[in-house]
Amino acid sequence: MTLYGGVEAGGTKVVCAVGSGAGDIVARRVIPTADPTSTLTGVVEFFADHPVAALGIGSFGPLDLDPASPTYGHITSTPKRGWGGTDVAGILGRGLGVPVALDTDVNAAAYGEALFGAARGLHNAVYLTVGTGIGGGAVVAGRPLRGLVHTEMGHLHVRRHPDDTYAGGCPFHGDCVEGLASGPSLAARLGRPAERAGPDAPALVARQAFYLAQLVAAVTYLLSPQRVVLGGGVLGLPGLLAAVRAETVNRLGKALPAFADDLDHYLVAPDLADRSGVLGALALAADLAPNI
Amino acid sequence: MTLYGGVEAGGTKVVCAVGSGAGDIVARRVIPTADPTSTLTGVVEFFADHPVAALGIGSFGPLDLDPASPTYGHITSTPKRGWGGTDVAGILGRGLGVPVALDTDVNAAAYGEALFGAARGLHNAVYLTVGTGIGGGAVVAGRPLRGLVHTEMGHLHVRRHPDDTYAGGCPFHGDCVEGLASGPSLAARLGRPAERAGPDAPALVARQAFYLAQLVAAVTYLLSPQRVVLGGGVLGLPGLLAAVRAETVNRLGKALPAFADDLDHYLVAPDLADRSGVLGALALAADLAPNI
Repeated sequence: MTLYGGVEAGGTKVVCAVGSGAGDIVARRVIPTADPTSTLTGVVEFFADHPVAALGIGSFGPLDLDPASPTYGHITSTPKRGWGGTDVAGILGRGLGVPVALDTDVNAAAYGEALFGAARGLHNAVYLTVGTGIGGGAVVAGRPLRGLVHTEMGHLHVRRHPDDTYAGGCPFHGDCVEGLASGPSLAARLGRPAERAGPDAPALVARQAFYLAQLVAAVTYLLSPQRVVLGGGVLGLPGLLAAVRAETVNRLGKALPAFADDLDHYLVAPDLADRSGVLGALALAADLAPNI
Repeated sequence: MTLYGGVEAGGTKVVCAVGSGAGDIVARRVIPTADPTSTLTGVVEFFADHPVAALGIGSFGPLDLDPASPTYGHITSTPKRGWGGTDVAGILGRGLGVPVALDTDVNAAAYGEALFGAARGLHNAVYLTVGTGIGGGAVVAGRPLRGLVHTEMGHLHVRRHPDDTYAGGCPFHGDCVEGLASGPSLAARLGRPAERAGPDAPALVARQAFYLAQLVAAVTYLLSPQRVVLGGGVLGLPGLLAAVRAETVNRLGKALPAFADDLDHYLVAPDLADRSGVLGALALAADLAPNI
């Protein structure tokens, strides 16, 4: 069996895995995200012990994904200290001496869920994650969505909840959906993490549903996916997924008869827990097989 | 040369054309949209005089585009009188005895502009039209975007302009972008058509730019097209396209360096005037060639 490598590079940890690209993992290591040199050296060392035929990477960004660009494969203007301008694809590809496929962390997760998880068998699916930030990736006609750059779904502007006086935490826009509904924005309002909201939890869930349903509705109107997978740490809030479903029915149901009833099969939790991204990255590597 | 048929079915007129599917038109007829029977009979009569090997249709909707559905090819819940439940694809396919490809009017226009027009040569493009309604179609990886249903970009909720007291004209949502920025919504506020705005024109252009830039920004964040083609009768307002570009730079530029400068090559007018849809429909028909 040909073995491939998958890397999910996140802001706090980098997950490395080895597998066939068909949903299995035969070896795995988690490396804390530190400075680029020591972090990526750790990745190269792991795969030196576990040789692979090709590497797939799902990385935080923004990324330069234009193959014609001189900075293809680099992280571009990230606020993450030290990582701006890092040639993730080049460093790992040269370090391992294998072909590399690069995409965003959220596209890799969307691909993983569409191949092996909660959107298995569907050709058009969107994966949204609500945690430290808010992001979204998409699979269209069976392939991760690419365009001029890559999606930046967390920057969608949404209408403000009438009771919400928080200015918003996005360094670029203030009150885009990431600025209003990410984990840090909840903690900034509460003065403590959202999971310790206590008596504030019902109001918090209602406000989150108001914001996240606008994102799900926009995704539906603009991309028409067959299913939306909604994950991330903030979705651990009890009742939040059901509240987002109900609010999304309110928004979509009148215009689109297909969304007039419950959305239990349309808006779903991830199936792969924290493996969505790395399984998608492994599949991206396996897709390189014809070129190896 | 094999000849194909293209039909662009709109709310006021149906355009029929014959061509090779490569951007040419050798015969053309415009039929006013009346009741379904007389209108579609007119289409069948035109193609009886101009035999074609297959037919592509870009139609107003909503449409059932699910090949597995018993009502595939039907217009579903349109507010247009008499047209709800019309089996557009079936009536024309049986009437002509040829294979039929069906998509939305806006997807056909997006496909036409991506193949032959303002987005020629690009694999990822979005076409937005602002007229009687607001709609958007997309080409992703070279193919018209399809999913659970089809895109309904005009229903995107946008933030309201602070000076705008109009409730919005969408029968489903009131103040979605179609309800706030379509031609009829402008006329409803003015008491006369937008093209006769006179001294109200500058404020109207500024407000339209505020709304339409939110749509362009959402499209960019969620779909990352290589280019956005913005057309429709309302874009005839002098200065509107430039104003939408400027407002879009304000919104996108901070988060996405690729959009920090002018958007003259990103946000453009259609190249094919009123032929975008019918040329896209002809290309959809020609795509059926392997199955004929």
